[in-house]
Amino acid sequence: MTEAVILVDHGSRAPEAAASLDEMVGLVQKQRPEILVLAAHMEIAPPSIEEALQQCVTQGARRVTVVPYFLAPGRHIAEDIPALVQTAAARHPQTEVHLAPPLGVHTKLAEVILERLEESTKI
Amino acid sequence: MTEAVILVDHGSRAPEAAASLDEMVGLVQKQRPEILVLAAHMEIAPPSIEEALQQCVTQGARRVTVVPYFLAPGRHIAEDIPALVQTAAARHPQTEVHLAPPLGVHTKLAEVILERLEESTKI
Repeated sequence: MTEAVILVDHGSRAPEAAASLDEMVGLVQKQRPEILVLAAHMEIAPPSIEEALQQCVTQGARRVTVVPYFLAPGRHIAEDIPALVQTAAARHPQTEVHLAPPLGVHTKLAEVILERLEESTKI
Repeated sequence: MTEAVILVDHGSRAPEAAASLDEMVGLVQKQRPEILVLAAHMEIAPPSIEEALQQCVTQGARRVTVVPYFLAPGRHIAEDIPALVQTAAARHPQTEVHLAPPLGVHTKLAEVILERLEESTKI
């Protein structure tokens, strides 16, 4: 596959956070079987963005897009992730590296919120 | 309105993060005009969960559901937010307080990711 996507979340000590990201990677992969889709974490847990990019290149990707799996903008989106992507990309000058915006505001997110509302439990 | 929803995110020093949550609150409010929808932050920035719950009660809510505006499970979902909700709820014994799960894994999130992929820029 010549095209790849890296879905990068914050990174957590909680194994269920990484499991959730991996599950999302599986859903995206299913919708785009022609693209290699990998998970990475901004910090705390491996794989890092750099390790995931290396993996993409090893598997033949020529164009890699990093998508921040974050809901909202902030320092991680404006500074930390762009810096990590830039450092990783500098090691692979033959690879075209792109950076996408975070999930941001979207009516589909409002729909998911309304579904979760129905799954609430009493405190 | 006798029913209310509090959408609670992590809280950030970046004003664009709060603006993004407020915009999501607006989208949910639009889809459910019969429910009062308010924003709150787990930490860092006001309003807190307790302040938002107080606001709901003041506006006549009898049943309030807190929805964590987080993508994945982890310590904030398992411990911090439930503890804050419980403390806030204890001050309003006449109000039925519910807690919803976070957004979690959903095909709609995969669809949003694929849209953001198209909005990427070259590093």
